[in-house]
Amino acid sequence: MEGSTNTGKSPPQDVSHYFSRTTNRRAPSRVKAFYKYFQIPGIQNLAGGMPFSSYFPFDTLEAGVALPNRFKPTPNDPVDPPNARAHKKGPEAAHLLVPHDSAEKDVLHKIDLSTALQYGTAQGYPSLYSFVRGFVQINMHPNIPYEGGAEVILTCGSTDGFSKILECFTNIWDEERDWIRDREGVLCEEFAYMNAIQTAAPRGLNVVTVKIDDEGMLAHGPGGLADVLDNWDVYRGKRPHIIYTVTMGQNPTSGLLSVKRRKEIYAICQKYDVLIAEDDPYWFLQFPSANELSLKARGHAVSENHPLEPYNYNTASGGKSSGYEFLDSLVPSYLSIDVDGRVIRMDTFSKCVAPGARLGWLTAQPKVVETIQRITETSTQQPSGFVQSVIAELLAGPSDTADDPGKGGSKDGSGWKVDGWVRWLEGLRGNYERRMQTMASALEEGRYLVRQSTNSEGFEEVSKTQIYDFNYPMAGMFLWLRCHFDTHPLYTEPHLVGAHNFTGPDLSRAFWLFQTKPKYRVLAAPGQMFAPSPAVSEESAWQYFRLCFAAVDEAIVKSSSENFVESARDFWKLDAKQVQELLDELAAPAPPSEAEAMAMSQAQYAINPTLC
Amino acid sequence: MEGSTNTGKSPPQDVSHYFSRTTNRRAPSRVKAFYKYFQIPGIQNLAGGMPFSSYFPFDTLEAGVALPNRFKPTPNDPVDPPNARAHKKGPEAAHLLVPHDSAEKDVLHKIDLSTALQYGTAQGYPSLYSFVRGFVQINMHPNIPYEGGAEVILTCGSTDGFSKILECFTNIWDEERDWIRDREGVLCEEFAYMNAIQTAAPRGLNVVTVKIDDEGMLAHGPGGLADVLDNWDVYRGKRPHIIYTVTMGQNPTSGLLSVKRRKEIYAICQKYDVLIAEDDPYWFLQFPSANELSLKARGHAVSENHPLEPYNYNTASGGKSSGYEFLDSLVPSYLSIDVDGRVIRMDTFSKCVAPGARLGWLTAQPKVVETIQRITETSTQQPSGFVQSVIAELLAGPSDTADDPGKGGSKDGSGWKVDGWVRWLEGLRGNYERRMQTMASALEEGRYLVRQSTNSEGFEEVSKTQIYDFNYPMAGMFLWLRCHFDTHPLYTEPHLVGAHNFTGPDLSRAFWLFQTKPKYRVLAAPGQMFAPSPAVSEESAWQYFRLCFAAVDEAIVKSSSENFVESARDFWKLDAKQVQELLDELAAPAPPSEAEAMAMSQAQYAINPTLC
Repeated sequence: MEGSTNTGKSPPQDVSHYFSRTTNRRAPSRVKAFYKYFQIPGIQNLAGGMPFSSYFPFDTLEAGVALPNRFKPTPNDPVDPPNARAHKKGPEAAHLLVPHDSAEKDVLHKIDLSTALQYGTAQGYPSLYSFVRGFVQINMHPNIPYEGGAEVILTCGSTDGFSKILECFTNIWDEERDWIRDREGVLCEEFAYMNAIQTAAPRGLNVVTVKIDDEGMLAHGPGGLADVLDNWDVYRGKRPHIIYTVTMGQNPTSGLLSVKRRKEIYAICQKYDVLIAEDDPYWFLQFPSANELSLKARGHAVSENHPLEPYNYNTASGGKSSGYEFLDSLVPSYLSIDVDGRVIRMDTFSKCVAPGARLGWLTAQPKVVETIQRITETSTQQPSGFVQSVIAELLAGPSDTADDPGKGGSKDGSGWKVDGWVRWLEGLRGNYERRMQTMASALEEGRYLVRQSTNSEGFEEVSKTQIYDFNYPMAGMFLWLRCHFDTHPLYTEPHLVGAHNFTGPDLSRAFWLFQTKPKYRVLAAPGQMFAPSPAVSEESAWQYFRLCFAAVDEAIVKSSSENFVESARDFWKLDAKQVQELLDELAAPAPPSEAEAMAMSQAQYAINPTLC
Repeated sequence: MEGSTNTGKSPPQDVSHYFSRTTNRRAPSRVKAFYKYFQIPGIQNLAGGMPFSSYFPFDTLEAGVALPNRFKPTPNDPVDPPNARAHKKGPEAAHLLVPHDSAEKDVLHKIDLSTALQYGTAQGYPSLYSFVRGFVQINMHPNIPYEGGAEVILTCGSTDGFSKILECFTNIWDEERDWIRDREGVLCEEFAYMNAIQTAAPRGLNVVTVKIDDEGMLAHGPGGLADVLDNWDVYRGKRPHIIYTVTMGQNPTSGLLSVKRRKEIYAICQKYDVLIAEDDPYWFLQFPSANELSLKARGHAVSENHPLEPYNYNTASGGKSSGYEFLDSLVPSYLSIDVDGRVIRMDTFSKCVAPGARLGWLTAQPKVVETIQRITETSTQQPSGFVQSVIAELLAGPSDTADDPGKGGSKDGSGWKVDGWVRWLEGLRGNYERRMQTMASALEEGRYLVRQSTNSEGFEEVSKTQIYDFNYPMAGMFLWLRCHFDTHPLYTEPHLVGAHNFTGPDLSRAFWLFQTKPKYRVLAAPGQMFAPSPAVSEESAWQYFRLCFAAVDEAIVKSSSENFVESARDFWKLDAKQVQELLDELAAPAPPSEAEAMAMSQAQYAINPTLC
């Protein structure tokens, strides 16, 4: 890019030494040399193999959609989510229309079915690609430190995105065929989103866990990133060259990684030439009120993130503003410090539009994005034009300079634009933040069990036992709750187990089942679901439960949190026979993985739709 | 399955010995053991990590859609495709609506945004999955010969489907790392759809071509399947264990493989334990009139397929009828003779709904489908709920037994059902068949060049030179045209090339460019685009052009076919200087691949939307 050296930035580093064998065999695109023939005025194209677009059975695509201000942001009075159907014709709704044909000449603004439902480009439907690219470069990450900035490519959601990242950067390894020295590895948090791990594991990659604290991955200290890489044992394989990390509302721990920690981790990645695959579905779900609530209830904040005074993360570091107070207030991505171009970031519309959209995007240095585009051409090709055109019309809206019969997601028929999109994210954050507050407040009450007992001298004593603990979630959709099974009267160390007491893991399994009993009817996700390795599972995972405050009705968030408290109180009072009965009832060998939990929650609705 | 042995069929064979290393490392699903906990009445699910469905910004999804009878089937009077917009409110159109919530209890009939836009199951959105599965098992393939029949799983289109088949059944091979004896291979037609080949090639697979005739792959004879497998040279790698084949309207040759040939090829696959990946996007685009036209114009039919008398392929082989005359009249899939369960079939909505849908399905024995489901869970997860719900509503329609505010694609608000879907396919076949007739008739006229010349004795002579040839396409979207460059006055054998004559490949390149000149403005796809190997490219591919009659307006099909004829006539009259000028103009080193052609045709619309 001419003149771009004037920015004083350096270009991103070449990361092609990490390209997989498959990636290296992908032929570079020779398209550009042929552009000129397609540009011949009036050329009759008999070369392409496309069906005729007037033969598509869809004349228009339409939708009843929310206005961006449907939900109230925080801080504000709590607002119940309006019933979507009741508001269909109400002030918070608009009617969106993707026409069959738009006369718009500029392909970056054209949204119609003739083009959206035809074969498309792997980077994404131009109008949507263009909107996302602008939002990413100007608003989300205004301060990417390498020359020219990052590029984007649309994905079929972040599971698809991560699968392509692994395809691009890792080689399949097999014990029978390969030397152990060639085994590649992926680093991840000690507790992790298991679907990502299950994408990596079949490739034969070492899945290497890094210790975490309440924020997320530890840079230094025992088990931290530096420790793992410094002391890498080559007899396990190659030193891992890529991190999979969820840094904002980490799944399952809800950790929110501070800028300071990001810098420490990034420096270690530079030292060992490690790539960072940042999966960030909950970026806009950061909850400053967690600090206030924690301070009020416990006298200390959750973390140094989100100081009580409004804070601008972009300008505080000397960078450009995003143009929006809300976005400036969010802890920024690893991209904001990515001088080398070693970050590949995954975003998704799953949490801010709908998971069923199967739509997201990757952001990385241009050469990486181009490589992912080659992979996309021979796999998914592009996200469905149905979702791409509808989201494009919702956000970018029809062109107002052309004969364009489209209607966007705003009241006046224009698109939401960036203003509306940011407002929508703020409102959504508000709704989820209030749910977080509801759950955390209900659970705050029940952390201690007050018990009367008789001491050795025959006196009645009142003791206060902590039965569980948690941090107020600073981001995401989950509350990560740690049970103090060692305070359970029947708890014992494994080597002391007898007929009338139990190990922590056994108590945990019994407690999980106990919660589902008619009096409580709560289904929690056991911590072991999120243990990437058997070691983590045995060592500590059994102490945890992940409680999601996002999926169910707000009223149920409260009642089910209260039921959980009740079940914990009651469980601590069970006798050995009752615990043993629960264990006997549990036929299943191990708690299911996250992917399976997801399948299960589907199985659930397949079996009983009213539960969904 | 109890009692299923009464069918007298054998179960499909185990094909897991071909599972890739990655496939073998995928953990089996442990979901079923946990179903019971999700079934607990009133359970409050805090385990799943899903967003709240009332927070999706979509209240309804709607569409103006065609009625199934929009187009007239063949045989019938030609009908111009109606302008889609003009007919939006006309009799051939209906208004489809996917509601936010349906009260339908049966998940196999429920279609609403609450479920479609939520995380879903990898096999597909239940109502759509259920429709497709029924259509596949009852109507498309009523006579699958193994016990229990085939299963289906939805894909993000057939490129995605084939990518998953390769992931399931092939191992990545690399010269640096692996023994040549471990190199796996995929068999394909001598001319092939290159996007599929480009999916296979980066995995390091041997791409092994099999000779074809007008029908498709040869079973016997030199270069045929038996020859290739019998004489496999182990120094090239393992004997290939999977065929990629397009058997109906083969891309690019338009071949339609007869049942007889299918049986011959299947027997060879049994002998060598070869899997068959059948890619069949043009299944419903079979053109019986090709035989009639060929008979009329040339005195012989194209092939033994589609005898002139109406023929029922299902009952003729002693099987069950599909229930539809149209479907019974179509040459059936390899699945109809798949006693072993070695066929994995790819279907797509790309050609019968729209390519941008990125929606299709795989059909295979249940164990293979289950394995593909595991792969899907860690990559695409599922096709977009936007397209799944709209297509579900179009075809399956709302439930009429429940409080379901949905509206399907029929006039009365019900779905098209199988009747409507088959009628739509018939109408679409009609439109494309008429285009085929238009193009073939225009080209028929110009096959011979009548030239006057002076013989050695000074007499004027009239000679009739064949400049090109083709078969009337029996299926698909293409006409595969072979130029007789050896009749060109400037043609010579490579070893005789001088200053005033040219080799066939050079004439071909010059001719391709010549067609794009202002007088003709035709863009054809050069045969070399479809050559899976350099050998095929050098040997014969340069003689061919693929002409697509599907993508452009019907009027243009005629005019551009005529322009092609005109350009051919004129090209045969060029002098050496003119041909040399064309060759000089061609800077590009080689014709682009099919994938690139697709990207190009996108580039084209990116540059000039009016051309699309």
